Amino acid sequence: MGTRSSSAPELLDASVGGDRAALARLLSMVERGGDGARAVARAAFPRSGAAHTIGITGAPGSGKSSLTSALCRVVRASGDRLAVLAIDPSSPFSGGAILGDRVRMADHTLDEGVFIRSMATRGHLGGLSVATPEAVRVLDAVGFPWVVIETVGVGQVEVEVAGAADTVVVVVNPGWGDSVQANKAGLMEIADVFVINKADRSGARDTRRDLDNMLALRSGGHPPVIVETVATRDEGLNELWEAIRDHRRRSTDSGERSRRREARVDDEMRRVLVARLIERAGAMGEDPRWASARRAVLDGTVDPWAATDALID
Amino acid sequence: MGTRSSSAPELLDASVGGDRAALARLLSMVERGGDGARAVARAAFPRSGAAHTIGITGAPGSGKSSLTSALCRVVRASGDRLAVLAIDPSSPFSGGAILGDRVRMADHTLDEGVFIRSMATRGHLGGLSVATPEAVRVLDAVGFPWVVIETVGVGQVEVEVAGAADTVVVVVNPGWGDSVQANKAGLMEIADVFVINKADRSGARDTRRDLDNMLALRSGGHPPVIVETVATRDEGLNELWEAIRDHRRRSTDSGERSRRREARVDDEMRRVLVARLIERAGAMGEDPRWASARRAVLDGTVDPWAATDALID
Repeated sequence: MGTRSSSAPELLDASVGGDRAALARLLSMVERGGDGARAVARAAFPRSGAAHTIGITGAPGSGKSSLTSALCRVVRASGDRLAVLAIDPSSPFSGGAILGDRVRMADHTLDEGVFIRSMATRGHLGGLSVATPEAVRVLDAVGFPWVVIETVGVGQVEVEVAGAADTVVVVVNPGWGDSVQANKAGLMEIADVFVINKADRSGARDTRRDLDNMLALRSGGHPPVIVETVATRDEGLNELWEAIRDHRRRSTDSGERSRRREARVDDEMRRVLVARLIERAGAMGEDPRWASARRAVLDGTVDPWAATDALID
Repeated sequence: MGTRSSSAPELLDASVGGDRAALARLLSMVERGGDGARAVARAAFPRSGAAHTIGITGAPGSGKSSLTSALCRVVRASGDRLAVLAIDPSSPFSGGAILGDRVRMADHTLDEGVFIRSMATRGHLGGLSVATPEAVRVLDAVGFPWVVIETVGVGQVEVEVAGAADTVVVVVNPGWGDSVQANKAGLMEIADVFVINKADRSGARDTRRDLDNMLALRSGGHPPVIVETVATRDEGLNELWEAIRDHRRRSTDSGERSRRREARVDDEMRRVLVARLIERAGAMGEDPRWASARRAVLDGTVDPWAATDALID
């Protein structure tokens, strides 16, 4: 009667009942992709939809992990449960920092109301952009009312993944360069809340002014709230939590939350479609016509695009 | 009669004749993708195949750029012309380092026998993994006998791109962690030449021993050569250049070079196929059935995978 042989619906029932090992197994299935991930998606989908997702992104070293950890304390103090997904870019050289992040998260491990998990999906189909919404859906179905999506690294995919959350928090630090970088990275467009973390350092006032100036150029909608924090000393965290809840209320009332979810489903379906088409492309490699097309390219008779188009038609 | 209106074949003729502005335009067309890139590929393909490509990869800060720059000097001193493609990961936060790289490359700008170009293809279809082989093909067709593919950043795609070269150079530094990281990243499998750069620092001997130990576990084939360099002082560069030429001779004689090119064409055709399928997926978004499938997902009637599969069938 071990859980080793349990199906996705059984694991989901166990997870709802508080079985963390079952929940961890579900998320591993999502991470691995393939038929197991599909089974999890089928089981979790009908039970999901209630959670509010919070994306936290920003440059490396800005203190996203400390901020997430401090946010966990504030949310728990308010009585709510929450889950954290730390998105790992799967860079082949990223080893050290991620270990550090996990160590910092260790002070929540005994709290049943917090669930923390890092996601890495090197190599499998569709990668993080397909696996993350599915992992969120599992945590949602299991009953966490808040799911934080924290990006560990700096890639475009992670910014997109965090940017698709219901409430997007962008973390910058005092100093001239950071807000300019954030602007270049397109983070001005996606931020619902700006956090100036490490606000006890010199330059916080200048950074706020820079942000205000850049935000003044943004057209339409409610401007992002700017919050100053010192995450390592829990300063400003109540204000951040208030800003997040305020954005939730506001975006729900205005219909923005529904619009964003609609765009997110559209985006997810596109990624799933691409993943499915790539599976079919893989199968095409077995076709003998593939080998003769490759031979033609190697012989210099036809270029790769023309060869591939001939195969598709 | 300005070159502005020139076609891809005309630009290629001008590039072969030494017109660097024409060559830069061809590479910009490749970078932008789409029909322009296809036209360049059609023109360059029949003229390509002679160049030998050298991939240079390794962790950030290992001195890849200095090494590439020093290698340029040695290759030029030997009388050969060469081109360098610096692969930019297009990370939203990468600004500073790339500027520094370009500044370091500045000492070759007056030499007609060296052509240096950085590639960034944020967002467009297939990205660097499609654009890089096409850019290499242009430099090949223009007559550069050596094309260096240097990765600026640390992503999986860049390691793959550099790892597909005819000769793969992996750069590590003295110190315990680097060779272990390189091993984890799968670089042990792809390296033809290991460079211990900054070899004047303490620990170079230990790093060589670590590499030897790990390489002893590798099965089959000629083991990678290990070269120690201090790129900033041009030390060890003749040895590196000799190791690269030696690998070229050896892999040509053994048939390994042909096998690798065959695998590379296979890989490129798969990527092109995926890019084409993604174009079709984009078109599918316009279909009214797409909107009703999305509505079903939003209503919780059907999960995204089932909805997408129904659309494909």
